Amino acid sequence: MVPSVPSSSFAPSRSLSVGVLGAGTVGTQVIRLLTEQADDFAARSGARLEITGIAVRDLSAPRDPAVPAELLTDDATAVATGNDLVIELIGGIEPARTLILAAFKAGASVITGNKALIAAHGPELYAAAATAGTDFYYEAAVAGAIPVVYALRESMAGDRVTNVLGIVNGTTNYILDEMTTKGLSFDQALATAQELGYAEADPTADVDGLDAAAKAAIIASLAFHTRVGLDDVSVEGIRDITADDIREAQASGCQIKLLAIAQRREDEHARGVSVRVHPALVPADHPLASVHGAFNAVLVEAEAAGRLMFYGQGAGGAPTASAVLSDVVAAAAHRVHGGQAPRESCYARLPILGPEAAITRYQVQLEVADAPGALAAVAGVFGAQDVSINSVRQNAYVGGQTAVVTIVTHPAAVFHLDAAVEALRRDEHVAAVISVQRVEGE
Amino acid sequence: MVPSVPSSSFAPSRSLSVGVLGAGTVGTQVIRLLTEQADDFAARSGARLEITGIAVRDLSAPRDPAVPAELLTDDATAVATGNDLVIELIGGIEPARTLILAAFKAGASVITGNKALIAAHGPELYAAAATAGTDFYYEAAVAGAIPVVYALRESMAGDRVTNVLGIVNGTTNYILDEMTTKGLSFDQALATAQELGYAEADPTADVDGLDAAAKAAIIASLAFHTRVGLDDVSVEGIRDITADDIREAQASGCQIKLLAIAQRREDEHARGVSVRVHPALVPADHPLASVHGAFNAVLVEAEAAGRLMFYGQGAGGAPTASAVLSDVVAAAAHRVHGGQAPRESCYARLPILGPEAAITRYQVQLEVADAPGALAAVAGVFGAQDVSINSVRQNAYVGGQTAVVTIVTHPAAVFHLDAAVEALRRDEHVAAVISVQRVEGE
Repeated sequence: MVPSVPSSSFAPSRSLSVGVLGAGTVGTQVIRLLTEQADDFAARSGARLEITGIAVRDLSAPRDPAVPAELLTDDATAVATGNDLVIELIGGIEPARTLILAAFKAGASVITGNKALIAAHGPELYAAAATAGTDFYYEAAVAGAIPVVYALRESMAGDRVTNVLGIVNGTTNYILDEMTTKGLSFDQALATAQELGYAEADPTADVDGLDAAAKAAIIASLAFHTRVGLDDVSVEGIRDITADDIREAQASGCQIKLLAIAQRREDEHARGVSVRVHPALVPADHPLASVHGAFNAVLVEAEAAGRLMFYGQGAGGAPTASAVLSDVVAAAAHRVHGGQAPRESCYARLPILGPEAAITRYQVQLEVADAPGALAAVAGVFGAQDVSINSVRQNAYVGGQTAVVTIVTHPAAVFHLDAAVEALRRDEHVAAVISVQRVEGE
Repeated sequence: MVPSVPSSSFAPSRSLSVGVLGAGTVGTQVIRLLTEQADDFAARSGARLEITGIAVRDLSAPRDPAVPAELLTDDATAVATGNDLVIELIGGIEPARTLILAAFKAGASVITGNKALIAAHGPELYAAAATAGTDFYYEAAVAGAIPVVYALRESMAGDRVTNVLGIVNGTTNYILDEMTTKGLSFDQALATAQELGYAEADPTADVDGLDAAAKAAIIASLAFHTRVGLDDVSVEGIRDITADDIREAQASGCQIKLLAIAQRREDEHARGVSVRVHPALVPADHPLASVHGAFNAVLVEAEAAGRLMFYGQGAGGAPTASAVLSDVVAAAAHRVHGGQAPRESCYARLPILGPEAAITRYQVQLEVADAPGALAAVAGVFGAQDVSINSVRQNAYVGGQTAVVTIVTHPAAVFHLDAAVEALRRDEHVAAVISVQRVEGE
């Protein structure tokens, strides 16, 4: 049994060395807080945490005064291999991956916020930590300050998660908000976001859904005890959302949100997990509809717990640093008191389902013949595919011989929903299928 | 270093014995889930969890078929002292306290949801766990399925919490909702809640705020690394809330909620923590205003993380069982892989502030002379106490020589707010102080 050193010992004699890889927005806040609140960190972890090196690419770049100049080095390998705790905040795949593997090999515990790396190489990093007998933590990789990784990995350890629905990318959420509140086009809203520094010059990772997809892969891996990589996620970004789409969503009492969705199916037709990122209509009274700007929120549904929601700042230096530092305290406490971070849990090995097996709802706008029997025929097309209809709304009269009808279905598999839409395109009562959108959140 | 046994090993050879004290609503669900999902629990914790005994008071009482009759016993001490893991779900102070202490003495890890016991005897139980070198977990004690204990104890370990604001009692939240939506009196709403089983025959613990106060004490202890007991919490329940209060709140664009508040002051006038439970006006657009019925929500504000909100089911058999079982997995994993639950963290030893040092906002309704200069005089009374005014609203004209005015202040210490109200009562321009209410949430 581990010796019981009370964590309330105020002046620990032990100290642990800390190396920081990267001194950008988050790194600077991590360094500032570790320094300013050193006594708190010592009391909480049981050891004084001493930063011994901060690896940066450009030694001469201007820095926040919170970053001690004498600790800066461009020898990242030395920082990665010379410390008890290594905090990786470089981002991207390389050299982050190589440095983290070197850190584990040197016996370090590693804390990172690198979602792309975990989504691509998570199992390798977990294995390296297990071999080293040290900790691998990455709370900051998903939704900034919100403890989503912990919630899924530990709070839900006694439950069966069925569904996770999240707004996990602040940039796209900001852009969609701007389009909604100001009637901007996607390009206009993107330009505004770039001017304000909310979107990068190359916005691809955000607006094409790749950042959210990496987070979705991490979420699904944890929620379902199954390895899910970036390639397992079907992804659609927000570039094609038009001002018209936004207006129509509002007319339907909805908001368009870019969602990361991890879903478990265990029914007569399919067994496995569906993981996807796409824009969807969310009813205005759903808790996710009121998540605005750079805030993130994650809704977790589990068999026993029911619905839980976690809400907070999804990015930014200080909030992300808060997540990094909770991991630092946990990893440090393990080195002092014994114990380890949870290892990879992938025992369930659920199959990854293709996008056609995803369960969603469709909102379909049709132009139909304004003739008796037309609506019944349309309803029959859905029924033939086992899709039941939740609501039918006839829009303002278009004139002539046709009417515009908006149909929202109940949840069904994309396979059946798409078959119904295909059949509608061929149906003699349907003049045109105007739009098809997914609806999420009930 | 702890040997690294991957938690993904599917068929662990090791097993751990589990004793359950109490087979009520929560206990029944815990037993059902542990049995039905035995393979999942084995894969996640690294050991098969075998229930060896279930202690109940009345062996002959009717039971859910999920509870195996052959495991029932009325020898609670034997169950407490004969297992690796002991789950205490009896509630109340005794015999729960004696049984938990006996369990620790026998080397067990203990999981409980007993908020009253922790608020009264937390330090003693933590000390017993430390002496035994085992775990003490109590996620289920606060807000059911919502991982508030973890969030404060571990996710915020790298941050400084400044404020926690929570709706943590579903019964009172349901009663206030009924009063709001149906215009019922407190007594009518309480009777409805009792009929539906949402309130007990003796509703004291809920409606007088004692249940929420125990949770507030636990929240404050964790948030501020300081021992806070039940006696340190100033408590006011909802018995005195009238249908008029509810109507006036709505007229002010607010909802009345029973809040558990834990606040840290560190300013020129005071240093310490203020912990209290009382009804307060919450602006309708504040996230806590939309928490209805038996749902709970906890808002945490921290220096680096900013504002986080956690939302979910605060009570009920299955949600509470989910919280208990996450603790069971953690405690079991520690027995298999080494490591320990966080020990009591009370190193900060912040002073407990009296209710007069709490920072809040007041909404004051006054009947003032409808004469030039009256409003200026009233504003001057607040100013003399260093209280600034956020808004002034003149209500529908009462007639005669007086007008009704509603004033909402900015945040200030109760000490100054009360002094201002006292001065108003004596002011010649004020015919009457109609009502004074606290406003929380910005």
